[in-house]
Amino acid sequence: MSINLTILGCHSATPRINAHTTSQFLDINNRTFLIDCGEGTQVQLRKYKLRFSKIQCIFISHLHGDHFYGLIGLISTFMLHKRNHELHLYGPKGMKEVITLQLKLSKTWINFGLYFHELTSKSSELIYEDDKVTVHTIPLKHRIYTNGFLFKEKDGDRKLNMGKIIKHEEIDVCDYRNLQLGKDFKNGDGSIIKNELLTFPATPGKSYAFCSDTMFSKSIVPIIENCDLLYHETTFLKDKEELATTTMHSTAQQAGIIAKMANVKNLIIGHFSARYPDLNLFKQEAMAEFKNTELAKAGKEFQV
Amino acid sequence: MSINLTILGCHSATPRINAHTTSQFLDINNRTFLIDCGEGTQVQLRKYKLRFSKIQCIFISHLHGDHFYGLIGLISTFMLHKRNHELHLYGPKGMKEVITLQLKLSKTWINFGLYFHELTSKSSELIYEDDKVTVHTIPLKHRIYTNGFLFKEKDGDRKLNMGKIIKHEEIDVCDYRNLQLGKDFKNGDGSIIKNELLTFPATPGKSYAFCSDTMFSKSIVPIIENCDLLYHETTFLKDKEELATTTMHSTAQQAGIIAKMANVKNLIIGHFSARYPDLNLFKQEAMAEFKNTELAKAGKEFQV
Repeated sequence: MSINLTILGCHSATPRINAHTTSQFLDINNRTFLIDCGEGTQVQLRKYKLRFSKIQCIFISHLHGDHFYGLIGLISTFMLHKRNHELHLYGPKGMKEVITLQLKLSKTWINFGLYFHELTSKSSELIYEDDKVTVHTIPLKHRIYTNGFLFKEKDGDRKLNMGKIIKHEEIDVCDYRNLQLGKDFKNGDGSIIKNELLTFPATPGKSYAFCSDTMFSKSIVPIIENCDLLYHETTFLKDKEELATTTMHSTAQQAGIIAKMANVKNLIIGHFSARYPDLNLFKQEAMAEFKNTELAKAGKEFQV
Repeated sequence: MSINLTILGCHSATPRINAHTTSQFLDINNRTFLIDCGEGTQVQLRKYKLRFSKIQCIFISHLHGDHFYGLIGLISTFMLHKRNHELHLYGPKGMKEVITLQLKLSKTWINFGLYFHELTSKSSELIYEDDKVTVHTIPLKHRIYTNGFLFKEKDGDRKLNMGKIIKHEEIDVCDYRNLQLGKDFKNGDGSIIKNELLTFPATPGKSYAFCSDTMFSKSIVPIIENCDLLYHETTFLKDKEELATTTMHSTAQQAGIIAKMANVKNLIIGHFSARYPDLNLFKQEAMAEFKNTELAKAGKEFQV
């Protein structure tokens, strides 16, 4: 069980030399996800030698170019590389029309299963689940329909308490799996030994909340509460708080306040406006509210 | 009068680190044009410090991603930079639908005149003309509807032959402009002095032919005949001539043959497949047919 996040781009608006727009590569419990896909993302994936053929799902927060314009190129590259396993896309309604129109006009025939999961709900919903991982949306407040995403590992198996188990002769090795899964043990005489007497609690699953473009919004706090790692956008510093409100973005201070209110363990900030040459000012401002803050940077890895 | 061409990308299929897809920045007689716009073109424009706000027209050869997927991002950047002068887009039918759909979904309101000139003709046609420059399409043979473009300077003014002019007292300085424009001179007695007796021929306009993705096609020769500079795609070497035919691309040898048949002055080759690590093999193969061959390379400038 582990979460490994690599930042591919963390700047706002337009891609520039050494200032790539939003994209993140997420490895969670051996599931490989891409979050957002600004122009040039596929080259960033190559630069950091990430095995992008392994990507199973791509989550798109919203259809502004700096989060989305690299998606069609990445899909085309998968096709040219003769990908043969499914790709699932999660993003706002409209995504399917744009992608399929471009594939049609370029007469590109996709040789793998390409599944669109278009999102329209304004409440948090479960959009992905398998035996190890869940993904919920985090409805955000931006100029167009936007979601963040909460990635959670399911709790692991309970751990065998061998000191106790060996005292019960009836318990066989074959029973261990059921104990790990939390089941009670039934003796031959029908009596029950409660699972918690034979096992230790499971390792709780870790969680990562990605909060893309959004204005300051307390409504996300209950959804991201106590998560291990939070990414929150900080387009501006508080000197431009009014502009942040007008454009529906956040300041570094506001990101820090959200992290504190939600009692998260660590905060990453990004989506920096090009007007600020010194990114450390973002860190200082956020840290005044929430100490465990790190700056996003292309190529930087975060582990939970 | 001058033509100045900067290569922004010259590789086929997918953008990679240091292998950018097709785009060229063309300055012709003080008109600023962009030809094709693969993903990442806007970053290449910044890298080579080209004043891309000056671009007046963008010519798109076809709607394959490696020639087109950077266009929407560049338009969005123009909008964010508060561009306030017209932009004209020339490209295949379908271009307008893709671009406007993406602008609509991102709720992007363009604050400058954005004009689409969609092309459908299968014969060469004049698509742009002003007082100094013309642009004609070059119909190409590829998997989808594709055009090259022939950029031509109009001939300059005729040059005054002062040695002859001063012998005619009736000719005043005020008449010089008409002589430069090729008009005959009319004496007071109604007699005529032929223009060619008073002027030297004009400097002929230069020309640049951009031949994007195409299979070997002699039908383009009459259109590009005698041009000063020809760009012709060479995706493959002749070892893959069969694959070139199947995918409707050209080999370096075929590009050289076209340059020779069309009697052009200089040839640039590009659109190299990633399978060839040594690009000099392309140059050698083309030069066996046509000596004045140069390899395209990102950042390289060509002047006519």
